[in-house]
Amino acid sequence: MASKFILSISALLFSLAMLAQNDDSITIRKIANEVLTNGKAYDNLRFLCKKIGPRLSGSANAQKAVEATARMLKEAGADTVYLQPCMVPHWVRGTKEKGYIQMAGGTRKELHLCALGNSAGSGNKGVSAGVVEIESFAELDTLGTPVIKGKIVFFNFPMNPTYIETFNAYGESGRSRTTGPAKAAKYGAIAVMVRSLASNPDDFPHTGVTIYNDSFPKIPAVAISTNDAAWLSKQLKLKMRLTAYIQTNCSMLPDAPSFNVVGEIRGSVHPGEIITVGGHLDSWDLAEGAQDDGAGIVQSIEVIRAIKSAGIKPQRTIRAVMFMNEENGGKGAAKYLELAKANKEKHLFGLESDAGGFTPRGFSLDVSDQAFEKIMGWKNLFYPYGASNFTKGGGGADIGPLKTIGAGVCGLRPDSQRYFDVHHASTDVFENVSRRELHLGALNMAALVYLVDKNGL
Amino acid sequence: MASKFILSISALLFSLAMLAQNDDSITIRKIANEVLTNGKAYDNLRFLCKKIGPRLSGSANAQKAVEATARMLKEAGADTVYLQPCMVPHWVRGTKEKGYIQMAGGTRKELHLCALGNSAGSGNKGVSAGVVEIESFAELDTLGTPVIKGKIVFFNFPMNPTYIETFNAYGESGRSRTTGPAKAAKYGAIAVMVRSLASNPDDFPHTGVTIYNDSFPKIPAVAISTNDAAWLSKQLKLKMRLTAYIQTNCSMLPDAPSFNVVGEIRGSVHPGEIITVGGHLDSWDLAEGAQDDGAGIVQSIEVIRAIKSAGIKPQRTIRAVMFMNEENGGKGAAKYLELAKANKEKHLFGLESDAGGFTPRGFSLDVSDQAFEKIMGWKNLFYPYGASNFTKGGGGADIGPLKTIGAGVCGLRPDSQRYFDVHHASTDVFENVSRRELHLGALNMAALVYLVDKNGL
Repeated sequence: MASKFILSISALLFSLAMLAQNDDSITIRKIANEVLTNGKAYDNLRFLCKKIGPRLSGSANAQKAVEATARMLKEAGADTVYLQPCMVPHWVRGTKEKGYIQMAGGTRKELHLCALGNSAGSGNKGVSAGVVEIESFAELDTLGTPVIKGKIVFFNFPMNPTYIETFNAYGESGRSRTTGPAKAAKYGAIAVMVRSLASNPDDFPHTGVTIYNDSFPKIPAVAISTNDAAWLSKQLKLKMRLTAYIQTNCSMLPDAPSFNVVGEIRGSVHPGEIITVGGHLDSWDLAEGAQDDGAGIVQSIEVIRAIKSAGIKPQRTIRAVMFMNEENGGKGAAKYLELAKANKEKHLFGLESDAGGFTPRGFSLDVSDQAFEKIMGWKNLFYPYGASNFTKGGGGADIGPLKTIGAGVCGLRPDSQRYFDVHHASTDVFENVSRRELHLGALNMAALVYLVDKNGL
Repeated sequence: MASKFILSISALLFSLAMLAQNDDSITIRKIANEVLTNGKAYDNLRFLCKKIGPRLSGSANAQKAVEATARMLKEAGADTVYLQPCMVPHWVRGTKEKGYIQMAGGTRKELHLCALGNSAGSGNKGVSAGVVEIESFAELDTLGTPVIKGKIVFFNFPMNPTYIETFNAYGESGRSRTTGPAKAAKYGAIAVMVRSLASNPDDFPHTGVTIYNDSFPKIPAVAISTNDAAWLSKQLKLKMRLTAYIQTNCSMLPDAPSFNVVGEIRGSVHPGEIITVGGHLDSWDLAEGAQDDGAGIVQSIEVIRAIKSAGIKPQRTIRAVMFMNEENGGKGAAKYLELAKANKEKHLFGLESDAGGFTPRGFSLDVSDQAFEKIMGWKNLFYPYGASNFTKGGGGADIGPLKTIGAGVCGLRPDSQRYFDVHHASTDVFENVSRRELHLGALNMAALVYLVDKNGL
């Protein structure tokens, strides 16, 4: 009798859970239909890319993007839109940057290059020296000062093509760009050329931040295209005698005032509990920052619009945040965390989209075990929309820090095959974003925000 | 004791199965590394698209594509490469095609249009008449001759944006193009305009085959861009008085000689059992046929290359087939089946790639229940490579017919979000294919062919 009663209770609870999932699937279908039929993310992205363009921190365009996204958030239906002032690094590329390989035989090959973000300029004279190819940091350390001093170091760390997830290859080879120049400077190199972090052979230099070590000189540092890197490596392996010339005119100006942009729907039951969804508003200066991270910006705005348009009244406060300065400083994320702490805000959950607006495959979650189990229980709700691959992993550079104040953090994981064709290069333009892929990402984000709001974590 | 023995046997069999899967995962990793590192599919596709271009059946370019892919198959390592002669329809677009909407007020709007494949030309005078918008075949039947006679019918069947799988929307709305003109002719329409079968608003007309009914006149039929269709629908709903003018100069010439191209690796144990992998070599005339179906062609060639390069000696005969004339006749597929029957070939399995060279998600299978269970047992082997979504479904237009002679048939199912941006339009060019996505598809195809060959079905 007792066991029968327990069985009945179990059956009842199971039935209730099924009913709830059925309700949820109806609401998510409503969100999906709204985004797929009337979605504004693509049009908003066109504006960001074509009417504004590159939005490097501290630039006039970054300020235009602040104003434009504040307007978009209002149009999307946010109850409140406000700015969070923050100071950001203000790096400028300058007008001239060029370089070539001078062969001992007299021929010269111009390089497709660009200065790395936050790097120091060479001055108008440029720098010229013999080239040492380095294929691992261990090799650099082994060669050391005797070989490196006075040379231009060429870091040739190709992204491993056999990794199916391109971010894994980026994580591995990306160190050549972020810390390579500082490591080479330690051994007396006078400049650094980095093989672009691109998945495929192409002629575009892909920029990105480099981080100097204050103990060593800030030497000029450029990215060269993957095709140029392959060519140069071949010359060096054939023992061809050559020198490289690099000229960059970039410089770091004093920090500049800027803003995060925040749009909220105030919670109807627990307004003090906050769910943040965001991307970063700044982009590199070479392109339109369409996939990186215009996509995440307009998707976050679309989450607000979809929730309002689907007639959902969130219990908790939903905040879409356009973080400033992810690319070369992270000052926006730091400011958001600082204010959250100062205001003693309770952050339940944060969701970041900063891996491109490609077809969504799932979410990576850094949440408690209990929350992970809960979210895994929603897997079937995401299956029809393609984003049911829930894995343990990080949130992202802007949302990740919220973990330190107790939030569960999460990143949208889209298909990654095309990301490093455009990442930080002049190819990251609106034309390389698919409307349906972008909107599919947004609707899955809105669905997850809806479920976390409704059920808590 | 007996049960213990059975348990031991079970454990042994389980262990053997695990060991086999482990061997298989090593071989598939080898295939994957080969394709991702040295894959030739992308370079072969560049040649097909940029050195040859559009390859409509019966055209000089189609013949060039026959010769080029025969060469590619040899380079890929096929033991034997041969051609299968077949006669194909020879439709030509002609030089002039244009059209506009003439408003009663005097203004005129030029339309982005193209003749539908296999359609009849209007003659140099063109045709002009009032326009009747039709949103369903039921509506057409209701209006019938009294309203339709003497008019130009405008089929406005938008692809449903809320379907996540775009092929489902295409299947539903595509009837407007394939059978709409014949149905309108039945009621006396003098021409047909079809809303292009595109997932998004754009300015490109998307062609494709239409199939007349011999009982009714073969009236001119064009596709207009989705943007033009939206504009025209709006004018008609506002009751604006207007007429349409359409001029096409396409015509059907006598059937022309052409070929399927076949490349084989002869089986080492069961040479008489055949596994076919293929795509179609012909393309529409408006573009390069990069996704449709240059991708499937070069992936099929890559399957041969990958198997040879990975040092696999197939037990069965692996055949890569470049089918001719999928787009407007299916004569290549019919010839392949006819010869298979005439030669009493034993066909075990067929795999088609004709849904674009996008990131692979899985395979749709039309096989026996027993074979389906067997293939489902390989799911985990495909998980690392993204194509583990095995569903019941069809093979495709070229491979599907092999079912009638006992083969299990199967289609590669890639991500479908971008396919109908380019499908049958001038946007289907090499630049809209991703190297990594294309190669990922090829390696998953090679893995499936490897497993079917090794294990049978």
